[in-house]
Amino acid sequence: MTKESALNKSEGTRPSSGVNADLAKKIRARRKQEISTETLFQKIKAGDKTALSQGITLIESHTAQAQQKAAELIEKCLPFANRSFRIGITGVPGVGKSTFIEAFGGHLADAGKKVAVLAVDPTSTVSRGSILGDKTRMETLVNHENAFIRPSPSGDSLGGVAKKTRETIILCEAAGFDTLLIETVGVGQSETTVHSMTDFFLLLKLAGAGDELQGIKRGIMEMADAIVINKADGENLKPARQARSEFRRALHLYPAKDSQWQPKVLLCSALKKTGIEEVWDLMKEFEELVKENGYFNSNRQAQNKFWMLQTIDEHLRNRFYRHPEIKKLLPEQLKALEKNETTPFEAAAHLLEKYRSL
Amino acid sequence: MTKESALNKSEGTRPSSGVNADLAKKIRARRKQEISTETLFQKIKAGDKTALSQGITLIESHTAQAQQKAAELIEKCLPFANRSFRIGITGVPGVGKSTFIEAFGGHLADAGKKVAVLAVDPTSTVSRGSILGDKTRMETLVNHENAFIRPSPSGDSLGGVAKKTRETIILCEAAGFDTLLIETVGVGQSETTVHSMTDFFLLLKLAGAGDELQGIKRGIMEMADAIVINKADGENLKPARQARSEFRRALHLYPAKDSQWQPKVLLCSALKKTGIEEVWDLMKEFEELVKENGYFNSNRQAQNKFWMLQTIDEHLRNRFYRHPEIKKLLPEQLKALEKNETTPFEAAAHLLEKYRSL
Repeated sequence: MTKESALNKSEGTRPSSGVNADLAKKIRARRKQEISTETLFQKIKAGDKTALSQGITLIESHTAQAQQKAAELIEKCLPFANRSFRIGITGVPGVGKSTFIEAFGGHLADAGKKVAVLAVDPTSTVSRGSILGDKTRMETLVNHENAFIRPSPSGDSLGGVAKKTRETIILCEAAGFDTLLIETVGVGQSETTVHSMTDFFLLLKLAGAGDELQGIKRGIMEMADAIVINKADGENLKPARQARSEFRRALHLYPAKDSQWQPKVLLCSALKKTGIEEVWDLMKEFEELVKENGYFNSNRQAQNKFWMLQTIDEHLRNRFYRHPEIKKLLPEQLKALEKNETTPFEAAAHLLEKYRSL
Repeated sequence: MTKESALNKSEGTRPSSGVNADLAKKIRARRKQEISTETLFQKIKAGDKTALSQGITLIESHTAQAQQKAAELIEKCLPFANRSFRIGITGVPGVGKSTFIEAFGGHLADAGKKVAVLAVDPTSTVSRGSILGDKTRMETLVNHENAFIRPSPSGDSLGGVAKKTRETIILCEAAGFDTLLIETVGVGQSETTVHSMTDFFLLLKLAGAGDELQGIKRGIMEMADAIVINKADGENLKPARQARSEFRRALHLYPAKDSQWQPKVLLCSALKKTGIEEVWDLMKEFEELVKENGYFNSNRQAQNKFWMLQTIDEHLRNRFYRHPEIKKLLPEQLKALEKNETTPFEAAAHLLEKYRSL
């Protein structure tokens, strides 16, 4: 009875015996796949969200077969990609990222924009309160016909997450999503990663330039195209305005951006849905400027090149550091370095010489 | 007559003929070298500045023979290194770096400190007004018995300059220099490079937060342990004080440093020699804090490790990108990327597969 449950039936993997039956199953399975990559692509192109989800699952899958299918799918989608405005959103936990994305994404979706929400979170195996891991927090947006929400791929290195997110962007764009919100949970290098795959980078803040600022890592403020001070409502409005002045002064001290855009500081209350329209107006202003002055395209080209070189570097490093011989020798050199018995350059030369002779 | 000029005589390389004579010369030359590495080391250890200069010249030399000797010399010096306080100094051209180093270094040398001044300038083949290329600008310091000034090694990549500078630091420390001033001309990544080889990072500024700020690259302000506003004298004193308030506010917005040090803003006039003592007091305060809380050592360990990994990465990359086959294939992939015919990851995978099969 247990074996014959509805769940087992629906999976269509009833046990069969004999080599021939197995082979037949394999052939059927393969045929099914061959059909489905093209079908999947057609459905994605038609804006089918279920197909989009299935496509992303292929991208996130670790099997060679799924990876092969994912590569085919991405290749089909590529000519239809590159068409959205990609917005990176960061901020420390507690700043109200989920509420903001719900309000902001909802505003855009209501206005007819097709909004996809993705996340970069290399630590999502261990729950860190990532907003997108907890979809229920964005109830309205998740059910909006113009919106698509996908949690971060889990259990992976930042490099792996970045690759999957960038490939997911291609699929979302092919599916007709014109506005991408890519959230970073602010762990490790995730802000830099999101910054290097988006057109506009938004930093969410709270009033009260004290403790919460400690959570923002070095360099993040300099990457921001806009700082939006959230929860600017009620009693919080006055300190929020004061914070706005402070951040404006601070931004003024930064060097000019390549985009020629002067970063702005805005107030909003995601909860009360105030200031949301202004954030979108600002982004449109930005988009107009950078499409006019050519930065939009040159930046995307530079990002593509960056990711290619980045991927190559990562692979070269992995091949080196994962080599059994290097794994054995590296700790010895690190120890010698610690005791000042060698220089960093001498130690490196020693390891490289060994590696070359392997 | 021309051939017998004093210049030719002094070189001691009068033409001789015959294989035996040549061989004898080579043997004599080699013997001379074998002696001189140990002699050089002994002289360096005794604080002989001429020997120190010769040692650094070996480090900067590109011949295999000189590199071999340099490696021997560094190995001998290593046990006597790691003993100085290393100060990085940056600021845009015109901020008065040379005058500041002259005044600050002179102050320390007068107080009995042994001061070595180095520079990191990967562009010094083309003169960019590097203060240390033009020694005459530091007339007093250059002639001070407690000071040693060495211009930046020229005509090299930043990685090359960094390696040479770090090795030079070892020699200077073995020669008994207890305070190292390492200037960066602020080109390319040179600030980050200097930051990652020093204990304290000082950013020189001018009052008037306008155009000159454009010259400071992103992230530099966040690296600073102190911002010193130079030329704070006469009519400039009032705007300098105002700038100090602004920078203090700006620094307040930055996240806390691993060192637990709260960066400070000071005024000085290198020309009038005011505020110099305060800068040194600040550094002593810093040194006390970080030696107490363990950051001084952990940071140096981290820097050593960083430089080792950095060197390995650079070599792995060079081997890849300088390979004739990759040189041929890379532009093709970049072109395909530009036309959105491939993804960064697909292009990288293609190149890596080719490289592996070579």
